[in-house]
Amino acid sequence: MKISHEGLSEVPGFLGAGLYCGIKQVKKPDLALIYSIHECTAAGVFTQNQVAASSVIITRNKLLKRGKARAVIVNSGNANVCTGKQGERSSFAAVKAIAKALQIDEQEVLIASTGKISEPLPIQKIVRAIPNLAAQLSIPGSHLAAEGIMTTDTFPKKITVRGKVGGKMITVGGFAKGSGMIHPNMATMLAFLGTDAKVSSPLLKKALKKSADLSFNSITVDTTSTNDMLLILANGQAQNRAFSDGSKEFEQFSKLVQTACQELAKMIVQDGEGATKRISIEIKGAQSFSNARKIAYSIAQSPLVKTAFFGEDANWGRIMAAIGCAGVPIVEKKISMSMNGTPFVKQGIGLGKKREEKVSRILKERELSLVVDLHLGKERARIWTTDLSYDYIKINASYRT
Amino acid sequence: MKISHEGLSEVPGFLGAGLYCGIKQVKKPDLALIYSIHECTAAGVFTQNQVAASSVIITRNKLLKRGKARAVIVNSGNANVCTGKQGERSSFAAVKAIAKALQIDEQEVLIASTGKISEPLPIQKIVRAIPNLAAQLSIPGSHLAAEGIMTTDTFPKKITVRGKVGGKMITVGGFAKGSGMIHPNMATMLAFLGTDAKVSSPLLKKALKKSADLSFNSITVDTTSTNDMLLILANGQAQNRAFSDGSKEFEQFSKLVQTACQELAKMIVQDGEGATKRISIEIKGAQSFSNARKIAYSIAQSPLVKTAFFGEDANWGRIMAAIGCAGVPIVEKKISMSMNGTPFVKQGIGLGKKREEKVSRILKERELSLVVDLHLGKERARIWTTDLSYDYIKINASYRT
Repeated sequence: MKISHEGLSEVPGFLGAGLYCGIKQVKKPDLALIYSIHECTAAGVFTQNQVAASSVIITRNKLLKRGKARAVIVNSGNANVCTGKQGERSSFAAVKAIAKALQIDEQEVLIASTGKISEPLPIQKIVRAIPNLAAQLSIPGSHLAAEGIMTTDTFPKKITVRGKVGGKMITVGGFAKGSGMIHPNMATMLAFLGTDAKVSSPLLKKALKKSADLSFNSITVDTTSTNDMLLILANGQAQNRAFSDGSKEFEQFSKLVQTACQELAKMIVQDGEGATKRISIEIKGAQSFSNARKIAYSIAQSPLVKTAFFGEDANWGRIMAAIGCAGVPIVEKKISMSMNGTPFVKQGIGLGKKREEKVSRILKERELSLVVDLHLGKERARIWTTDLSYDYIKINASYRT
Repeated sequence: MKISHEGLSEVPGFLGAGLYCGIKQVKKPDLALIYSIHECTAAGVFTQNQVAASSVIITRNKLLKRGKARAVIVNSGNANVCTGKQGERSSFAAVKAIAKALQIDEQEVLIASTGKISEPLPIQKIVRAIPNLAAQLSIPGSHLAAEGIMTTDTFPKKITVRGKVGGKMITVGGFAKGSGMIHPNMATMLAFLGTDAKVSSPLLKKALKKSADLSFNSITVDTTSTNDMLLILANGQAQNRAFSDGSKEFEQFSKLVQTACQELAKMIVQDGEGATKRISIEIKGAQSFSNARKIAYSIAQSPLVKTAFFGEDANWGRIMAAIGCAGVPIVEKKISMSMNGTPFVKQGIGLGKKREEKVSRILKERELSLVVDLHLGKERARIWTTDLSYDYIKINASYRT
């Protein structure tokens, strides 16, 4: 398997474009388009929030009906959520304009939005820019598309993963936006992948769902934003034999998708709002995967733990307290912890002042790996998060002003 | 009903004392004692955290066994949690020293601790100070006791509630510690109440449990700290006829306890770590109390909402997003919101820029009341929280150093 950071431009048959149409206050790309020269099977994973943007509802419905697509139009700067009937009409208008410009069926156009919430979408600006956007579609245009979906992101997040699937070389590539802390942010996560594999839409959905669980859903809890969306389009240009469920080929393909998603998710964590550290939290020795995950989230969601990471304080009592309120059975006296390989808690007790000072020194590093062993079973789960810093407050207190 | 802020000193038959014994770094009271001159029935509500301090385990067990008590010893500056067998021995040693100094049965002595976690309790200092502490017991000494339980609190929290119960004047009084934000803090909440009512311990427990749900459990989610404890001692000095369950007298008494708890809880919110605003969140028109509460918590726990309050931004889309991920059914198009009586969202849609600017001006006030009407049913719930500020990060990143 080969990983690079070119993004969608390396996937045969996909074009992209991005430009500024006037939604954002600053003159940065705020409109992005992805287009496949062939018809594609398509699949998506969407926010679980009951308040969902019209783009989410429209795209989800299209994929439920047909599982096919050829283009995705994305705007940033405005999430078009909590905007009622008018918002819905705006989303349909953008889809219609794209279908017309590309001379494809409206059913083949998917849509996503991200940005400020509860403000009317300036749809005229979008519709006016669409002919120009469509005209600019090109292979390197995918880089501009990756920029066109950014909001608070400080860098575009692109990935290409390439590997042999049943003897054929297959590419999965795409880009994402989001600056991720666990839960606290709820900033929208968007990711768009393309592949030249030939895959039925049910299998594409299956591979995508599992990949999402092991990547984006391991950095944001149950995708709580109103606009979260992860899409994959497969154009079949590699002319592989169609995979069957459970086959070695399907596993190989799934692994490519999973790797692409995980790499994008890690970039999102790295770009965490105001974060100074990237923290992997791994729970070992659990009775079930679900228990391990609940405990990992309880630690990652605790602002007391996150501020201790920011303060570079080996305050393991706060971690213990977070473990205790995860709502799953534990035995305090069995728990051990290590940071970047250095043990500092054993059988529920700290290993002394000296060891704690050593871990406090380790905490000055930017990449941290906390491992908690419950010593209760054989299951494990791993998630990624960041610390909680002054800058998080700054960014989120003033985002709209 | 009459409410004042004297605290326990107004409750007939209770004495208190507080002094500095050397646990805290700064020379402020860190040891507190409450004593009743008569035998008392007693009841408690404790943390649900599976990692519980030895003080919690010992006190809970004593009340389960007997439902009686005469003294409570509390230390601040050290929570004596995650300290293993040694920590347990320390708690027992403190209880024993109090029993000896007051010449009462060890079974009648309850214990609580709060402060730094996972550090050994300097039990020798406590045991050495106890004879002196016992000798200083007095009626005004309760004020020193209220100071002796403080940690990050910026002021002591005292309450006295007095009212007629079946013709007899009954007093409920006491004090609390805690600086409360919803969930984010997990700082220990301790509260100690005394009353001169005559009540059986099962009924005392019943009144206390309900009061906790409508007060402390409406500011801290399921009391997640390892040391949380709420105790009430009833010495029967008012010589009322014992209440029976469901009687008017029991309701009157319960109301006194509930009021005392609510007033203390509000003071805890007011003293929220680094908070600049106190926010009441009320959910109306819900299908059940439980649903209303889940939504209220989802709003109150959202750092995005809390930072918007800090930034004085009427960002109702963030509130809507928090409502949507509470995990209970809602109908977006039915939701209305008002802030301090000014409507700003109706049928799921903002009432325009002008109204939003008005609400942003209202947000400059220190006391805020958000009312969300789901228009789905008749149930409601109300909780209290604060905004999330730079100072919260500051306090919690550096608390141990």
